[in-house]
Amino acid sequence: MPELSDLAAALPPGVLVTDPDAMEPYRGDRANDPAVGMPLAVVRATCTEDVQATVRYAAARGIPLVPRGAGSGLSGGSSAVDGAIVVSLERMRAIEIDPVVRMATVQPGALNAEVKDAAAAHGLWYPPDPSSFEFCSIGGNVATNAGGLCCVKYGVTTDYVLGMTVVLADGRAVRLGGPRLKDVAGLSLTKLFVGSEGTLGIVTEAVLRLVPAQRTPTTLVATFPTLTGATQAVLDITRTMRPSMLEFMDAVAIGAVEDETRMGLDRDAAALLVVQSDEPAALAAEQIAAVEAYCAANGATECYATDDPDEGEAFVAARRMAIPAVEKRGSLLLEDVGVPLPRLGDLVTGIAGIAAHHDLVISVIAHAGDGNTHPLIVFDPADPASRARADAAYGEIMHLAIELGGTITGEHGVGRLKRPWLGDYLGEDVLELNQRIKRALDPQGILNPGAGL
Amino acid sequence: MPELSDLAAALPPGVLVTDPDAMEPYRGDRANDPAVGMPLAVVRATCTEDVQATVRYAAARGIPLVPRGAGSGLSGGSSAVDGAIVVSLERMRAIEIDPVVRMATVQPGALNAEVKDAAAAHGLWYPPDPSSFEFCSIGGNVATNAGGLCCVKYGVTTDYVLGMTVVLADGRAVRLGGPRLKDVAGLSLTKLFVGSEGTLGIVTEAVLRLVPAQRTPTTLVATFPTLTGATQAVLDITRTMRPSMLEFMDAVAIGAVEDETRMGLDRDAAALLVVQSDEPAALAAEQIAAVEAYCAANGATECYATDDPDEGEAFVAARRMAIPAVEKRGSLLLEDVGVPLPRLGDLVTGIAGIAAHHDLVISVIAHAGDGNTHPLIVFDPADPASRARADAAYGEIMHLAIELGGTITGEHGVGRLKRPWLGDYLGEDVLELNQRIKRALDPQGILNPGAGL
Repeated sequence: MPELSDLAAALPPGVLVTDPDAMEPYRGDRANDPAVGMPLAVVRATCTEDVQATVRYAAARGIPLVPRGAGSGLSGGSSAVDGAIVVSLERMRAIEIDPVVRMATVQPGALNAEVKDAAAAHGLWYPPDPSSFEFCSIGGNVATNAGGLCCVKYGVTTDYVLGMTVVLADGRAVRLGGPRLKDVAGLSLTKLFVGSEGTLGIVTEAVLRLVPAQRTPTTLVATFPTLTGATQAVLDITRTMRPSMLEFMDAVAIGAVEDETRMGLDRDAAALLVVQSDEPAALAAEQIAAVEAYCAANGATECYATDDPDEGEAFVAARRMAIPAVEKRGSLLLEDVGVPLPRLGDLVTGIAGIAAHHDLVISVIAHAGDGNTHPLIVFDPADPASRARADAAYGEIMHLAIELGGTITGEHGVGRLKRPWLGDYLGEDVLELNQRIKRALDPQGILNPGAGL
Repeated sequence: MPELSDLAAALPPGVLVTDPDAMEPYRGDRANDPAVGMPLAVVRATCTEDVQATVRYAAARGIPLVPRGAGSGLSGGSSAVDGAIVVSLERMRAIEIDPVVRMATVQPGALNAEVKDAAAAHGLWYPPDPSSFEFCSIGGNVATNAGGLCCVKYGVTTDYVLGMTVVLADGRAVRLGGPRLKDVAGLSLTKLFVGSEGTLGIVTEAVLRLVPAQRTPTTLVATFPTLTGATQAVLDITRTMRPSMLEFMDAVAIGAVEDETRMGLDRDAAALLVVQSDEPAALAAEQIAAVEAYCAANGATECYATDDPDEGEAFVAARRMAIPAVEKRGSLLLEDVGVPLPRLGDLVTGIAGIAAHHDLVISVIAHAGDGNTHPLIVFDPADPASRARADAAYGEIMHLAIELGGTITGEHGVGRLKRPWLGDYLGEDVLELNQRIKRALDPQGILNPGAGL
C-alpha cells in the first residue's frame, strides 16, 4: 500500500501500526460490540502534529477516522470501523498543574486518576469521577462529557473544561477557550466539543479547572425492604440538601458485591443507598443525621453512619465494584438511562417489570441523586435466545426512560450502541439540528462515523 | 405596508407595534450605541407561537430580527438594526418552580431577581447574579451567558441551564435538554445556544437548575495603598480557598461610591476588596481570618470583618453601585475584559497606563476572583476629542487583555460594540468556525445580524 507509506513518512517512527495482531487491542472498547470492524491502520499519536498529519492524510482520501483514548467506553464510541484509521491518544499523557489559576493542562491520554493525583500534589482536586476513573482517559471523559459519583454536588466534565486544542476535520488545529474563568467572546465552542464523541474534531489537549481539595466526607449506608422506599428517600434528601454522593444499588448488586467482599451487606434488602456529605464536620454530622431520618421515615431497616474515611471509602468501593461483581453472573448489556428525579421510582420499578417480562436478571445501580441509572442486563453469551431477550430489554428500557421524560444516556455517550434510539429521544428536528452542525464541521463525515449522532 | 398587515394578522391584537414613538424604547440598550438603527416594527411577543409567526414572516422575506429582553445589555447586542423586526420578550414572564427536581421553568422576559424570589419561596436559590440582577432578564442572561458576583464560587449562567425552548431561523421551535441533571445524548446544543446572543435562535423558555438557599455570608472589606497589593492578595486568597465573592474597586470607584453613600470608605486607598465566605459559621470565620492575614501581608491599611448580614450587604451594594456612581463623572464606555488570574495585576496597572496616556479617567472595578474586570472609561459626551480618546482607550484595553492571554469579554457579550475586536481575539480559524456554525443554523443571516460573531 503505497498510500500508507505516505502516512508513515509523515509520522515519527513507530507511530503507524498496520500489523493485525498489533492492531487488535485498538479495535474495541468495553461495550464489546460484536459488530466491531477491522481498521486499515492505527496511529499511536505522540503529539498534536501527529494527529494533524493523520487527519490531513485521511481527509485527502475520504478515509474514516476513529479516535480513542483508554478504550474504557461503554457505548462503542471507539469501536473500530472497517477501513478506518484508528487514532489512539494513549501515548499523549502530559499533565501540567498551575496552582495559581487552579487549572490543569492535560493531554488526552492521561488517565482521570493521574490528573486527580497531579492536582492532589498541589492540594487541589479534579472532581469528575467516573467509576472507571483509575483506567479511563481524560480525552474519553471530554468526548463523552463523563459523569460519576460526585456529580450530584460537583457537576460533570463540561463544568471543568475551560479550553482545549482540537484538530478539525481538515487537519487544522485550533485552540478554544483557555485559562480564563469567564469568557463569552464568540460561540461556546468549547462546550460544543465536550460530549461530541469525536464526531466534530479530535481533542489533543484540555485545560481543566481544579478546585480546592475535598474535605473528608461522612458516609451513611442505608438498606431498604422496598425499591420505592429507597427512591422516595432520595427525593426527600435532594429536596433539602446537596449530598456529595447519593448512590443506589438493588438486591442483585448487593448480593453480587457481598459475594466478592463479604463485608456484611444485607442480602435480604431490596435496595441500598450510599450517601456522603463533605461539609465541615458539624454540618456534615447534621446532614447525615437528617439523611438517616429520611431513610428511617421511608422504611429503612438499617442505617450505618461513619466518619472514618477508610470505612466510608470501603462502601464507595463496594458501589464501584457493582458492575464487575454483577458481570460474574453473565455477560452484561450496560444501560445508562436517566430521568427527572421524581420519576426515579417509576423507572426502577418499570425496569423490574421489563426484567420479569423477559425472564432476565437486570440489576439496577444508580447515581440516584442525578436520576441517572445503570441497569445491568445479564445474559448468557452462549445462548442466542438469552442475547435476543437482553437486546429487546435494552431497547425497552430506553423507551421507558423516554416515556418518563428521561434520556437514553446520562453519562456514557451514544456511541454506536445507542445510535438507533437517538432519533426517538431527540425527535426529528433536534436530530437534524445535530446533523447540520456535524456537516458544517465535518462535511465529508470522516470523523467517527456511525457514532454519537 | 400590506406585508406588515400579514404579520399583524398572524399575531394577537396589540403585539405588533409600528408607531415610531412606541418603538423608541425598543431601539437600544445600556450600551447607548450611537449607531442604533430604526426598526421596521416591534413584536411584543406573548408566547412561543408569536415568536414563531414573526420568524416565519421574516424568514420568508429575508428581514433581519433583533431579539431583546429587558434592554439592560452593555455591548449593544440588542441595538436595533435599520429595517429589522425587534422581537421583545419582555411580556413573557412566567416562572414555575419544581422544588423536587430543584429547577425553574422560566420565560425569557422574567427578571433575574424575579427568578431568585420565586426560588427563595421554596428555600431554593438561582445563583447567577449580574450587578443588574434587579432589572436584567433571564433571556438576556442566557443570551450572554451572564456572570456576576457569586460566579467565583458558583459559576455562570451556562452552569445552570438544563434546557430550553428555542425558535430556529426557519420558525421551527425545538426543545433542547430538559429536567435531567445528566444528559449526553447528541451534541451539547443547550450549551451552544447559551451565550449565542440571539444569533442562532430565539430562546422562549429556559429550564434552570436551582440549588439550596445560600447561607448568610461573612464579609471582609480591606483597603490597600497600592493596586498590586490588592491584586496579589487576590491570588493568595484564590490559591487556598473558594470565597463566595471576591470583588475589587479602585480609587476612582471608591471615591464615587463614597460620594453617594457617605459610608466612610477610605478615599485615600488605591484599591478595596470585598470578600465573602458562605461556609458554615466556624469555617467562614476561619476563612475570613485567613483572608485578613493575606490582605495584611500585602500591605492592607484597614480590614473590617462582619457577620452581620445587613452590614455585609451594604458593602456589596456599594460595589454594585460603582457603575452608576462613576457615571456621574461623565458618560461611560464600559469594558469587560478578563485575564488569567496571575495577570490581573498587569492588567490593572496596564489600564492605569492607558488612562494616563490618553489623559482619561478610567475606573476599574472587577470580579477579581475570576480575573474579570470592568474598566469604566469616563468621557465628556459634548467633547468629540474626549470621545475619540475614550474610543482609542477602549480598543487598547482589549488589545492589552489579549496580549495578557485574556478575553475581550468575560460576561457582557460581544454584542455590536466589540464585534470589530472579535477576530483579533479568536484568530481567523476560530472565527471561521463560529461562522460555519452560524451559517449552518441561520443560512440567511437574519438572526441578530452584526452582533455576537
